[in-house]
Amino acid sequence: MIVKATVSYDGTLFYGWQVQGEKRTVQGEIEKALFSLTGKKIRITGSGRTDTGVHALGQVFSFETDEKIEAKRLYKAINAYLPEDIRVLSTDKAEDSFNARFSCKKKTYEYRFYLSETEIPVKERYSLKIFGVDVKKMQECVKLFKGVHDFKAFSSSGRTVASTQRKIYDSSLKQTGNDLIFTVTGNGFLYNMVRIMAGTVLQVGTGKLPIENITNAFETGDRNLLGKTLNAKALVLKEVKYE
Amino acid sequence: MIVKATVSYDGTLFYGWQVQGEKRTVQGEIEKALFSLTGKKIRITGSGRTDTGVHALGQVFSFETDEKIEAKRLYKAINAYLPEDIRVLSTDKAEDSFNARFSCKKKTYEYRFYLSETEIPVKERYSLKIFGVDVKKMQECVKLFKGVHDFKAFSSSGRTVASTQRKIYDSSLKQTGNDLIFTVTGNGFLYNMVRIMAGTVLQVGTGKLPIENITNAFETGDRNLLGKTLNAKALVLKEVKYE
Repeated sequence: MIVKATVSYDGTLFYGWQVQGEKRTVQGEIEKALFSLTGKKIRITGSGRTDTGVHALGQVFSFETDEKIEAKRLYKAINAYLPEDIRVLSTDKAEDSFNARFSCKKKTYEYRFYLSETEIPVKERYSLKIFGVDVKKMQECVKLFKGVHDFKAFSSSGRTVASTQRKIYDSSLKQTGNDLIFTVTGNGFLYNMVRIMAGTVLQVGTGKLPIENITNAFETGDRNLLGKTLNAKALVLKEVKYE
Repeated sequence: MIVKATVSYDGTLFYGWQVQGEKRTVQGEIEKALFSLTGKKIRITGSGRTDTGVHALGQVFSFETDEKIEAKRLYKAINAYLPEDIRVLSTDKAEDSFNARFSCKKKTYEYRFYLSETEIPVKERYSLKIFGVDVKKMQECVKLFKGVHDFKAFSSSGRTVASTQRKIYDSSLKQTGNDLIFTVTGNGFLYNMVRIMAGTVLQVGTGKLPIENITNAFETGDRNLLGKTLNAKALVLKEVKYE
């Protein structure tokens, strides 16, 4: 059967999702756990890779198995073999055609800022300190991402993809006290795209970049019009949706 | 001059606030930093102790110094000598009579729960997983703490205090998605008081304790009527107020 699994992880101590030789990766740890559980080498497919340091609340992966255990209970058995910083939240039997990567329709990421001049230790692990920003301007900025655009400028070079056009369904920036959360939902994201979006929103907020640069970047594909790729520690893959 | 300082720390790697021999404590690290900065042994006074594992967003301490540096800038100099899990957020010159412990009027603590059957790694460091609870019942329960009561039953034995009567100004339980934050403000708290309050609220929520036990505990002082002392990792000293 094909199993669809939802997994959460603290990315701090991982070299990202994808297996890379002997490095500690999320995919690597899950495949090791499945091997310990079943005695078989099982390859899993994630909805996509997350980079070194990026966290997940609801990453999804799929795999094939002939284990006789009920799919809905399988996650507990897998968790028994996983380190504490990875937890499978649920497992379900999926249709034979299901593939966590290719069946994926929408992904939601969160990039977390907090407003402070000095680092706040309990916030440092999962969010990025910023200050001297115009929050309203940042909120105007995130709205510009909505719709279908060519996000070529919002991607780090190094990976070639067929198309750099993506559809952004929703993009918002919510303030609660000193916390500022940028949430973005799209049909897919290019390499480093959310971290470049977040860096651009930040620099628009500090006045270092004119807000017009976003539209210009869609038109020209020029990476230099945009902000830095921000730190991975404040990025969380929140949810992956299928039909 | 007397300096009033506000400090935030991640309590995970500390044996609490108070100096205890060679153990790593928050007070100990701050006094070491002040010694490195000034060359003098300076004793600091916290608004109160926090236990092993408890965090702080806004703990306050005071100390006397004859340093010629401007009080408002002092925090930056101290931070240069502190480990990453402690950050002084501000320093100010206070009145000569100011003492962080005895001048304290109100403290606010947060105890953080999250609703899930399985552990969520990115939530585990600062909050406690619970499930199968009646949130409305928990919200009724926290209201009962408000007012002036004898909180003897809500304290771990081991420390003797003159009075076990405390005034609770505010007590609420707010749900945001799967996060459930219990916030309580009082004129003071007994040893382990917030963690026992949180444990009681939880067991009322799961139906293990009748809500009447709270009023009975105020009257009888019987610790056995209440819930467990919950894990320190989900407790944060949020704010300390002076006049």
